[in-house]
Amino acid sequence: MSRVVRTRRAGRAASHRDERARQLVVRADPRNVESARRALGAYLTPAADRFVRSNFAVPRLRLRDHRVRVGGLVQQPLHLDVEELRSLPQRTVTVTTECAGNGRTDLSPLPPGEPWQGGAVSTARWTGVALPLLLERAGIRPGAMEVLATGADSGPVTLGHAAYARSVPLATALDPDTIVALEMNGRPLLAAHGAPVRLVVPGWYGMASVKWLSQLEVVGERFAGYFQSHRYVYREPGKAPEPVTRMRVKSMFTAPLDGSRVEMGPLRVGGFAWSGTGRIARVEVAFAGGEEWIEARLAADGESHAWRGWELIWTPPWRGRHVLRCRATDDAGNVQPDAGRWNELGYGANGVQSIAVYAS
Amino acid sequence: MSRVVRTRRAGRAASHRDERARQLVVRADPRNVESARRALGAYLTPAADRFVRSNFAVPRLRLRDHRVRVGGLVQQPLHLDVEELRSLPQRTVTVTTECAGNGRTDLSPLPPGEPWQGGAVSTARWTGVALPLLLERAGIRPGAMEVLATGADSGPVTLGHAAYARSVPLATALDPDTIVALEMNGRPLLAAHGAPVRLVVPGWYGMASVKWLSQLEVVGERFAGYFQSHRYVYREPGKAPEPVTRMRVKSMFTAPLDGSRVEMGPLRVGGFAWSGTGRIARVEVAFAGGEEWIEARLAADGESHAWRGWELIWTPPWRGRHVLRCRATDDAGNVQPDAGRWNELGYGANGVQSIAVYAS
Repeated sequence: MSRVVRTRRAGRAASHRDERARQLVVRADPRNVESARRALGAYLTPAADRFVRSNFAVPRLRLRDHRVRVGGLVQQPLHLDVEELRSLPQRTVTVTTECAGNGRTDLSPLPPGEPWQGGAVSTARWTGVALPLLLERAGIRPGAMEVLATGADSGPVTLGHAAYARSVPLATALDPDTIVALEMNGRPLLAAHGAPVRLVVPGWYGMASVKWLSQLEVVGERFAGYFQSHRYVYREPGKAPEPVTRMRVKSMFTAPLDGSRVEMGPLRVGGFAWSGTGRIARVEVAFAGGEEWIEARLAADGESHAWRGWELIWTPPWRGRHVLRCRATDDAGNVQPDAGRWNELGYGANGVQSIAVYAS
Repeated sequence: MSRVVRTRRAGRAASHRDERARQLVVRADPRNVESARRALGAYLTPAADRFVRSNFAVPRLRLRDHRVRVGGLVQQPLHLDVEELRSLPQRTVTVTTECAGNGRTDLSPLPPGEPWQGGAVSTARWTGVALPLLLERAGIRPGAMEVLATGADSGPVTLGHAAYARSVPLATALDPDTIVALEMNGRPLLAAHGAPVRLVVPGWYGMASVKWLSQLEVVGERFAGYFQSHRYVYREPGKAPEPVTRMRVKSMFTAPLDGSRVEMGPLRVGGFAWSGTGRIARVEVAFAGGEEWIEARLAADGESHAWRGWELIWTPPWRGRHVLRCRATDDAGNVQPDAGRWNELGYGANGVQSIAVYAS
């Protein structure tokens, strides 16, 4: 008998605004939960608090039976079980991953799709096999263009039935920090997060980090499956549709919490900033309406695929409600816009974030 | 000794998100509070729950000494104390009044000004003297164009020192429903709401309903004082500035409350809608992202200057978070836009409102 991968639910999710909740249920079935803001204060998000994005039900995979097939335009197809993957050289990378639909509720008019409010982002330390190592072992054949990752999850879509599948360009697949991951934060993956094995693509929105990974196929043309052409695509009026790829520059507050009471004295205001298009170069905060932005102190520029902490000290100038806003800039010159760029399916909403606090 | 108008604070205001709070402090000094959404469920808002918008400190007026002067382009200036106003024929009108800055926090980028989140609107039954009656008694002289109302409150402004003053066109002043009000909801005005006498201009944003009314002046040109030219003005890039006047069509949810848990069964969803540019003709609700709008039932079309109730029954289709949106249309064809029209000072924010609920 093979051992069934443990399927206990990640974290303690609340169905409503519970003051202690670490997660909020966005959709119960298939299971989609986001982290409550109070659960995002630490640099590494505990697996139990991390957002869960599922297109279909969690597949029940038997640890011993599960295989990752590496095929397509390769010299030597591979068929690797979890033990074999564990026996290969392991690499650990810290990665911030944001769901492409995170902050969809900030867009106006509200696009269809799960109504993520902003907690579908987190940072984890992933351990597994560098994808280039597997591709090297399989031997990439001439004409290769992309690597298509397919999950063991599947279900009905508007056009019939589909397995979850997403591609990345060959260059991204050959980045040594693209990982076929077996562990999150030093422990085996939880079922909700892709156990026993998932892909982790740093810098890209979460849709590229295929969970329950069952197949890696080297292909010679652009993949155009359902989740690449009908979902996870920017559709804007008057523009050709474009697949969602790298994370847009964004920042968020983790302290104080939105709606909280604060004292009249000096107060630490802080959060995280991330970008898939460069390193975080600047975070600014506005403490009232209008255009006065104050630069925050950035944490040391540490792990290149992880968010960067920022903070400053602020003293409320008067008693009452204050709306604080934050915006990030990356070293490629990308600046978080006042409002996220609207698109039909509501992806990449990276508009300036705000919180209200009550000074008294 | 004259009796001092009672100055007890309106309502029980909370400085932070208290589950039981009926009001939220937007700025403590001068006092600006908005109603918590849970305090806006009734057709008439109790005076104690009503929003308070103050540009300056509440003036301490002596009931017996206070006079309303009616002057300017009139045959016979009047000097009326509260007893004299009470002795004139009284008229009662039910009026919905929204602060021009209500919902400012919905605009992006956030304009300067008090960060009203949406609770600066309410409906009251006002009793007092019809303004046309006073103007008739004074006798309007030829050349009259506007009526300028001045309050007893004053203080520093960016350009020096100013009393609060705002004008309405003569036609608006001659509307029998424009009231020099002594009572709110059958009781003498509270100090925060303009005691002992205030103007109430139906259909207009609240800035026209001058509190602590001390003077009504018939003028032969357009008033251009601070609160007509530098505040309560729509300033938009590339457009000539225009004073804020009538309330834009808008709707809001009163049930369920934002962020609340709801059962999986049929549920009443409802709220109010109002417009200063027509009667409410339609309210629609969307229960998910995308463009499916369902028409709500409207309450009987009763009092023409008051908001109109609307409701419908909805059953959550699945467990999880649902974002509900509402939008109103008035009989002049004005439709609430997806997002309020941005302007430099953040007035008239009447974008589609939304709430999130957790079905479980």
